[in-house]
Amino acid sequence: MFKINENYLKLPGSYLFSNIAKKVAAFSEANPDKEIIRLGIGDVTQPLAPAIIDSLHRAVDEMGSAETFRGYAPDLGYEFLRSAIAKNDYAERGCDISADEIFVSDGAKCDSGNIQEIFSVDNKIAVCDPVYPVYVDTNVMAGRTGIYDTGTETWSNVIYMPCTAENDFVPELPEETPGIIYLCFPNNPTGTTITKEQLQAWVDYANKEGAVIIFDAAYEAYIMEESVPHSIYECEGARTCAIELRSFSKNAGFTGTRLGFTVVPKDLKCGDVMLHSLWARRHGTKYNGAPYIIQRAGEAVYSEEGKAQLKEQVAYYMKNAAVIYEGLKDAGYDVFGGVNAPYIWLKTPDKMTSWEFFDYLLEKANVVGTPGSGFGPSGEGYFRLTAFGSYENTAAAVERIKRL
Amino acid sequence: MFKINENYLKLPGSYLFSNIAKKVAAFSEANPDKEIIRLGIGDVTQPLAPAIIDSLHRAVDEMGSAETFRGYAPDLGYEFLRSAIAKNDYAERGCDISADEIFVSDGAKCDSGNIQEIFSVDNKIAVCDPVYPVYVDTNVMAGRTGIYDTGTETWSNVIYMPCTAENDFVPELPEETPGIIYLCFPNNPTGTTITKEQLQAWVDYANKEGAVIIFDAAYEAYIMEESVPHSIYECEGARTCAIELRSFSKNAGFTGTRLGFTVVPKDLKCGDVMLHSLWARRHGTKYNGAPYIIQRAGEAVYSEEGKAQLKEQVAYYMKNAAVIYEGLKDAGYDVFGGVNAPYIWLKTPDKMTSWEFFDYLLEKANVVGTPGSGFGPSGEGYFRLTAFGSYENTAAAVERIKRL
Repeated sequence: MFKINENYLKLPGSYLFSNIAKKVAAFSEANPDKEIIRLGIGDVTQPLAPAIIDSLHRAVDEMGSAETFRGYAPDLGYEFLRSAIAKNDYAERGCDISADEIFVSDGAKCDSGNIQEIFSVDNKIAVCDPVYPVYVDTNVMAGRTGIYDTGTETWSNVIYMPCTAENDFVPELPEETPGIIYLCFPNNPTGTTITKEQLQAWVDYANKEGAVIIFDAAYEAYIMEESVPHSIYECEGARTCAIELRSFSKNAGFTGTRLGFTVVPKDLKCGDVMLHSLWARRHGTKYNGAPYIIQRAGEAVYSEEGKAQLKEQVAYYMKNAAVIYEGLKDAGYDVFGGVNAPYIWLKTPDKMTSWEFFDYLLEKANVVGTPGSGFGPSGEGYFRLTAFGSYENTAAAVERIKRL
Repeated sequence: MFKINENYLKLPGSYLFSNIAKKVAAFSEANPDKEIIRLGIGDVTQPLAPAIIDSLHRAVDEMGSAETFRGYAPDLGYEFLRSAIAKNDYAERGCDISADEIFVSDGAKCDSGNIQEIFSVDNKIAVCDPVYPVYVDTNVMAGRTGIYDTGTETWSNVIYMPCTAENDFVPELPEETPGIIYLCFPNNPTGTTITKEQLQAWVDYANKEGAVIIFDAAYEAYIMEESVPHSIYECEGARTCAIELRSFSKNAGFTGTRLGFTVVPKDLKCGDVMLHSLWARRHGTKYNGAPYIIQRAGEAVYSEEGKAQLKEQVAYYMKNAAVIYEGLKDAGYDVFGGVNAPYIWLKTPDKMTSWEFFDYLLEKANVVGTPGSGFGPSGEGYFRLTAFGSYENTAAAVERIKRL
């Protein structure tokens, strides 16, 4: 008889956003007259920018003609896109990353879930707490996390690095050395960041201890302050210890269009083995490239027109972030994030749990947010709101919350 | 110090098609005057059908307007596509598969590589020999295949089922029971098929022994003979033992557009655990859906217009297949496949090895094919040509081979 991967059965419950969707659906059904405003899931609402739409139409036309039709893409992505990324995201920030160190994919969720595969099951991982649940869940599936304690809601073989108001949401270097360190800044869900100096300390630590940092920079487009690094490769020595994950979902509205990339510098090695070779092998064996037309859409993100249009799009969402941040502050909440990120993180009032506040907000204000506890045990007592709604809905939601 | 997944280092050499590309590039550079015809990699050359192009343009326009913009797709794929698949690929063939047993993905290569993840590392796999290399390679990466013998070019913990001219390319039931059986029919690379009765014997065997069949039906659109099953679910009892992989790459020319799906019936269980739940969990945790516009393109494949246009496209390639098949036969080769598949499989002349024949064909006829040995040890002494070129190139290549 065949056997299943028993690690899957260890995963507690189902995915955070499925639970939220179920609760909202039940509330909607019971209260068909209430108009719900969703500031929960981190999904964008603004349409693709005109430069991207034009590029998509052109690429579609190419696919319709034998002379310009494109079959299988190059394993690691089209050169036109990888060069645009290398130039705009790295060279222009003074980072030494070449086009052939960039692996184009269909999104950062896949990459952040798949990247653990090139590492031994014997590595111990360290994660910020709270954080995007995919890092831990995919390591559970791989059998790397030990036993789940339903009381503390933690895994025995994961190093949690609490990021709370008490430490200004800056993780401390762990006492026990992990093999793999996941860092996500600007952070999802807290919306907080660390400075270049603080990130440099992590790079130095990883190089000294022989750890790998998986740096998720999906929200870098929202960074407004000079002191905050957009890429880990702004730090000295990162080429020997860090992999960077990037997404087009949040800077260009590609949540339903799907494009991302991962950077694996050739200097990042375990003994003689380049992690670049391992990830290339994985791409070549298990992946067949992002669609040509989507890669052309990605290229348009870096055109002069595209950049100008997306700067406006980001500004639109950041105006929402300011409305939420200021509105909640006025209403007496303790509020974090929202300055270099599209997420606002608030402390629940009256010692409510995160899910209690979720229910309260849904019932009393008909506003959907995300319970902080869904992102890790240290998220308990916090709550996430996103700036990705329309301005009108966002302002209306804030007014409702203020009136509570 | 972090540790890598040592299984990756066990993989011999690099991927078949990368090696071919390198050889062809070297030959081109040395012989810039020679015009090479490529009948090697299974990549299509005909443009996307007009119905698909129209659908893509419409979907792109939707993404450009706030009212019709789409963000994150449903985990398992859009209902419009899953319903079209359930109706056209299954209900109309009398197969009992519902829309919610269909998981839309970005292609069959990813699915065929990822599916092993939901099974324990302790399962033994069985594969046809020769076959698409991704099945074995991804099991090597997962640590399921034991030790590689460079002499026989086989893995100690894999059951190889030879498919050669001696057994009419029909695999025999293995003596030792595997946990997981990969079957690919119409077969890549041999282009041969099995009848519904022969496939039924596999389904009965799997149900009796408690094995899972992973049935890769990527080439089903090329089936011309009545006796050959398009889906494993045409066989009685397949719902309790089989997963089916499907692709839009070959029936609709999506190699560079990327779309596929996997069927996991809810009756397929290990004890109480539905494999459907495990695969759904994987999709939900590590994947974020195929792009909306590509799913709309997939929907167009099932429109009346789309079906008519794609029938012509398949006929175009099958005309090529006939040209290759007949031409080589006339030239005295032993030829197989090509009747229900876009692949022609030939025995190399004069006991040449597959790679010797590759070099011979490249140098003497400037035609690129694929060495049979790249698909498994029993592929040695065989060679694959594909029908995916243009008619003109295909006919010219056959003339060149005939003149040798």
